[in-house]
Order: sequence, then C-alpha cells, then structure tokens
Amino acid sequence: MGKKYIRETYANDVSFTIEVEQHLHSEKSRFQQIDFYQTETFGTVFTLDDLIMVTEKDEFIYHDMICHPAFAVNPNIKRVLIIGGGDGGTAREVLRYPIEALDMVEIDERVVRLCQQFLPLTASSFDSDNRFNLLFANGLEFVANAKTGAYDLIIVDSTDPIGPGEGLFTAEFYRNCYRCLNDSGILINQHESPFYTRDCREMVRAHSKLKKTFPIARIYQFHMPTYPSGHWLFGFAAKSLDPVQDFKPAEWGSFNLQTKYYNLDLHPAAFMLPTYLKEILKGVK
Amino acid sequence: MGKKYIRETYANDVSFTIEVEQHLHSEKSRFQQIDFYQTETFGTVFTLDDLIMVTEKDEFIYHDMICHPAFAVNPNIKRVLIIGGGDGGTAREVLRYPIEALDMVEIDERVVRLCQQFLPLTASSFDSDNRFNLLFANGLEFVANAKTGAYDLIIVDSTDPIGPGEGLFTAEFYRNCYRCLNDSGILINQHESPFYTRDCREMVRAHSKLKKTFPIARIYQFHMPTYPSGHWLFGFAAKSLDPVQDFKPAEWGSFNLQTKYYNLDLHPAAFMLPTYLKEILKGVK
Repeated sequence: MGKKYIRETYANDVSFTIEVEQHLHSEKSRFQQIDFYQTETFGTVFTLDDLIMVTEKDEFIYHDMICHPAFAVNPNIKRVLIIGGGDGGTAREVLRYPIEALDMVEIDERVVRLCQQFLPLTASSFDSDNRFNLLFANGLEFVANAKTGAYDLIIVDSTDPIGPGEGLFTAEFYRNCYRCLNDSGILINQHESPFYTRDCREMVRAHSKLKKTFPIARIYQFHMPTYPSGHWLFGFAAKSLDPVQDFKPAEWGSFNLQTKYYNLDLHPAAFMLPTYLKEILKGVK
Repeated sequence: MGKKYIRETYANDVSFTIEVEQHLHSEKSRFQQIDFYQTETFGTVFTLDDLIMVTEKDEFIYHDMICHPAFAVNPNIKRVLIIGGGDGGTAREVLRYPIEALDMVEIDERVVRLCQQFLPLTASSFDSDNRFNLLFANGLEFVANAKTGAYDLIIVDSTDPIGPGEGLFTAEFYRNCYRCLNDSGILINQHESPFYTRDCREMVRAHSKLKKTFPIARIYQFHMPTYPSGHWLFGFAAKSLDPVQDFKPAEWGSFNLQTKYYNLDLHPAAFMLPTYLKEILKGVK
C-alpha cells in the first residue's frame, strides 16, 4: 500500500510510468495481486500483478474493440460466453445487444467485487440483468464441461498468459472453445502485440493455437495507449464467418449503438495489418 | 553527457523511460539540444530537446508512412520538397522513387552531420545522389520565396511545434506551401496525436490550419511505439487528389518496392479513424 508510481516494464530496459495521486486499494487474492490507483491523467487505474488492466481514460477502446466487431459479422448472436473479464467492461458492451444469455466465468471473485467498489464505469454491468449469469470458476474447466454448440460467441478477455490466465492460452482450451461454439460461432481473444519481444512471442503462441483449431483465424489491431507499445491485437477466429467478407454494416447500423472507438469504416480497416506483422504471422505454424 | 535514462514526459504524471547503455553524444546546437544514445531494445536513439525523434527499431514505421501514401495517390510525383527531416529517413524513402528532384530544407546542419555519424540507417540518404539538393535554411523563409507551383509533394517532417519547428505550424507557412504546390500537389505533415492533452491540442491547431488552406485535408494514423500513446497521425492535404478515392494501388505496385510497414491494404485503412478522433476533428474550424 502507498505506492507513488505505477511502473510497467515493457522490456528489460523500457518502462512506462504513471504518478499515483492515491493508492486506493491493494490486496493479494488467492490468484493474484490486485491494486487500484487514483491518477490525474487516467482517472482510476486497475492493475493485476502490477500490469495495467484498465484505466478510466482508455478502457473504451479495448471494450469497444473486443465486443463490437463480432456483432457486426453475426448480428444474430444470442448466447455469449466471456472467460475472464472481471472488470465488467466487456459484459457492459455485450449487454447492449439484444442477446438472450451471457455467461461469464471469472476465476477471481475478488476482482469483480473490487471493481464494483472502485471501477463502477466498467463494473456497472454487474447490476441486475436477467440475461447475465456470473460464475466464479476456472475458465479452462468450464469450457471442458460446457455443452457442444452452446454459444454463438466466446470472448476470452484474459490477463496476459502468465499467472492465472496461463491455462487460457493452451491448445486444449481452444479446442474446447471450438466445440462449445455452434456452426456460425466466433471466438475473440487477447492477442498481445507484435512490437516488444515478450509480447510478440505470446502473440505467435496464441496465433499458432488458433490457426490449428479454427478454419478462419484473423487478427485485428487497435490503438491502446496504456498497453505496451500502444499497438494491441485481438484474434477473430470462426468456424465459417470471415470478419471482412461477412461483415454486415447495415445490420450493425440498425442496432443504433453509440460507440466511442469502433465504427463501420474502422471495422474492415482494423484487419489490415502492417507488413512486418503480416510477415511474422505468415511464419506461424 | 552520461545520462543513464532517456525519459520522455507524455503528461505531467506520465512518462516513458528507456535505459541507456551508452550516451554516445550530447551537443547544444544554435537551435536545440541534440543527443544520441545506444540502447538495448531500440538500438541507437536520437533525441532533440529530450524528445525521441528516431530509434533504429521503429523508424521504419514513421518513414514508411510519411512517404509512401502520397506516391500511391500520385505515382507521377517528380519534384519533392522536404522541410526538416534532418535524420535523412524521409529522404531515404523518397529517393527510392523515380523522381527528378528532391530539395530538403533543414534548419540545423548539426542534426544532419551528427546523424551521418551516429545514425547511418537513416542518414545514408545523404550519400551522393544527383537528384538530392540539401539546404540548411529556415523552412518558413524557404517556402515564402519558392516558386509558385514548383513542387508535386511537400513533406513537413518537423519536430514538435515547440522549439525550432514552431514556425512550421503557422497559417502563413501552410499558405505558402499551397502556393508552391502544383494543381495535383500533396502536402504531408506531422499531425501529432489525439490521446494526451498536449498532443491533442497541437493536432487541433495543425488541422485547423490545413483545413483553412487546402480543399482536401484528411488525416491518417499509424502505430508508432516510441511516440506518446503510440497513436500517431500524419495530415494529407491536397489541391485536388483525395487519398482514398484517388488511390492507385496497381500503379504503386508497379514501383515494386519492398516496405516493412506500409502496404496496399493498409493505405485506405489508415484513413479510417476511431470515432472519438473523428469527433474531435469534426469540431475543428
């Protein structure tokens, strides 16, 4: 308690620092170190194991991009599973759609309870909604036991692949996700970043597993200022729907949703990757 | 001399830090503080007034994006003016095209001489090329005295709008650029970033002047990890050519250039901006 700086290391010799106005809370749960800070530029900042997860200033970018592209490819998504996502931001965006059911499986109840206390901007989604079923369980085990074809969309909103999120980056996990999705099913996952060596290695690992499991495994990018390098990726994997060819702008438009980062011009654009990234991905087996 | 860290401040309470292996050179020229550092992750890093200008690791992103989009909109560019660009990276990319003449006006000769010594990756462009005319002069005065319609392309590769680059962000400067361009003329300029308050204010100022001067004033974005927030912009202003509608992929393809960031899919995509940025720009008068 009482930290004066949030300092995140991007490489041995590279770091990003935010001055702390007030260290709001610090707690070691069964799974991880959880902290909340008050800062001038970013408002509330939430970290897990000293890695920045959510800031009030730029969370809209991440949560727009993890949710809306899938609904613009399959506007009939009705049954959604979120793995992780304990801050509530992903659920908040998903619940804006006329879905029937959202299951969310978060391993660490303390993350949810503390976000309810310190980060209502995202955690407001935990307020009562009949469609929302929140479980505190292991995501890996949950998908292993879930019904075949049960979901239209699975969003893996996990921490980085070190710590409690680690199991979520295994081949077995992705195979179970594939099984739990119906024929038009889509999986969105954290896909790290191509720039710094550590992130790039994890990007390659994640992509390799997706590529082996799903016939369609694309990547899209967005500008996320508080993640390493600001160049962050999500994976879009699917059984039959291509995120660009099967993009349905008019149908998404009819949802009439206001968004702050995502828009219909940006959707196909986000899948157009720089050459150096395409070349890394081309080499992934 | 002998700094152990490069620390760039993004906001009062936010900074980015790179550990220094060796502080290669430090010098105060007539215009600014110039430093070169050896670092592990980024190779050589070049700073002006303690702001990161170029790193060996990500300079290709900036120099690809400042140069290639213009040539893919007007493949017949023959006469080019670069204002600033003392590290040589922009000239390096421009000289890959079959142009007739490149004038480059850099205010600070010391930047060029030191980049030749410490940053050959970009400064190799200063090696003998009959088409390349390098002048050490004030860019503002140069364009005030340049011939009407003399150029097909002007690239304003300036430092931030504080310090010696300041005059380059005035309305008078842009009016003179307009006059020096022919009817199919294109101006590319540094356009800062929408995220942090200081950069966003400069973005709005730059855009306001472009918008008042050119009938076409668009913005495009790219992922630049060593600039604040990683979300960086260039302006594309033109008398008659629209960067998306007049995009000529086949003609650009016939140049047969290998690039590391830019590609033909990315070109139109880079002009598709997130909603929050579009809304800021919409309000610019």
